[in-house]
Amino acid sequence: MSLYIDYNWAMNLLLLRSENIQNNITTIVGRQLEHIIEVQRLNKGDTIRVGEINGAIGLGKITSIDDNSATLEIELTTKAPRPLPLTMILALPRPKMLRRILQTIAAMGVKTVYLINSSRVEKSFWQSPLLAPKAIEQQLILGLEQSIDTCLPKVHLRKLFKPFVEDELPSVVGSSIAIVAHPDSEQRCPIDCKATTTLAIGPEGGFIPFEVEKLAQAGFAPVHLGTRILRVENAVPVLLSRLYPA
Amino acid sequence: MSLYIDYNWAMNLLLLRSENIQNNITTIVGRQLEHIIEVQRLNKGDTIRVGEINGAIGLGKITSIDDNSATLEIELTTKAPRPLPLTMILALPRPKMLRRILQTIAAMGVKTVYLINSSRVEKSFWQSPLLAPKAIEQQLILGLEQSIDTCLPKVHLRKLFKPFVEDELPSVVGSSIAIVAHPDSEQRCPIDCKATTTLAIGPEGGFIPFEVEKLAQAGFAPVHLGTRILRVENAVPVLLSRLYPA
Repeated sequence: MSLYIDYNWAMNLLLLRSENIQNNITTIVGRQLEHIIEVQRLNKGDTIRVGEINGAIGLGKITSIDDNSATLEIELTTKAPRPLPLTMILALPRPKMLRRILQTIAAMGVKTVYLINSSRVEKSFWQSPLLAPKAIEQQLILGLEQSIDTCLPKVHLRKLFKPFVEDELPSVVGSSIAIVAHPDSEQRCPIDCKATTTLAIGPEGGFIPFEVEKLAQAGFAPVHLGTRILRVENAVPVLLSRLYPA
Repeated sequence: MSLYIDYNWAMNLLLLRSENIQNNITTIVGRQLEHIIEVQRLNKGDTIRVGEINGAIGLGKITSIDDNSATLEIELTTKAPRPLPLTMILALPRPKMLRRILQTIAAMGVKTVYLINSSRVEKSFWQSPLLAPKAIEQQLILGLEQSIDTCLPKVHLRKLFKPFVEDELPSVVGSSIAIVAHPDSEQRCPIDCKATTTLAIGPEGGFIPFEVEKLAQAGFAPVHLGTRILRVENAVPVLLSRLYPA
């Protein structure tokens, strides 16, 4: 064992798939079993916080455990925390960053993400195995387990900027406030926003002027975060925390 | 070449040491030279944003460049951005995280950091070669180069929790508002704080009750960030952005 564990990521919730729950009994294997044994050092009789993907949160009591599997009796009693009222449009990050950003997005309560192309997105990024649906889901689950949430974000891939922004984005935006983080903007990013937002974040180096213009045509107001240029993995928590301080 | 470059970190400013500047001429080697050549693909005659450590920001013009060094004529005209009015007390993170967190702290304008011990800090973390002064400085410089700042944060290491909190921390706090991020708190973390703050952030898993109590005795009010438990590398930008939205 030990191959699976990301020690940088805490498992504050054991997130279960519905198909693995029957009559309030579930069986744990693989990464989650390893975490229970190696990191949390739990034994038979111990309880742990559990949740059902897209469902409720509660407690699980370990009724049997060995190196191959653990069986838990669970009781799910509490609702998942409220999602952020925000849709994120994010220029596809470098694979190494993508992993952490997906975790962050899930941990902070974003539920809809469009990963889009942009002039400064390297073509090779689209070849990353991290973009396979199962790989994306795995990172999202790590984020939910960290922050104690159960509701899986939906992540959409859009490899063509122009048709996405022209044809699809207006209906994604709907009646929400649409903003794009852009250092050259004269308008300061809103603070403690009560409304629903569609937030676009460019690649390292930013959207090119043509792209900012196309986004403006789709209703996006450019907003800045001060003179400091942040890397995307910091810009994401900074923007979310500022728009919706918990 | 190529050993030095962290492609996840943009060099939006070439940060120079005073001792390498003479009569507005400087010579670039190593990581910075490599970045200019391999990433920015600059040539003789090109200009680049430069700054002097703890000094001003301006432009440098490349007057000669080859694989071994580049010479720049520089003119420094602009002040560095304002620092955040905040001192950070941070339980020493896991080495892999420490690197990124030091970069983030520098990028976001924190100028004084105490890395402290805590019950949930593994002893081995204090052995990391990343804690050597030169290694810390290197991460801080990467952060400043990302965010276009010149003022190097001061990072202090305090390996003993109790004597630090009892004997030294009260004078570090002075007349500032002292808060400790703590999920169990009933008080919400302030938003858009105008005052000077001393902010304590625990390790993954949080400060233990004894430590929260000692911090309370030193004047720290526990504040929460909502029900979601964030990993430290997200909690840092979330807290800074919330306390001091740029």
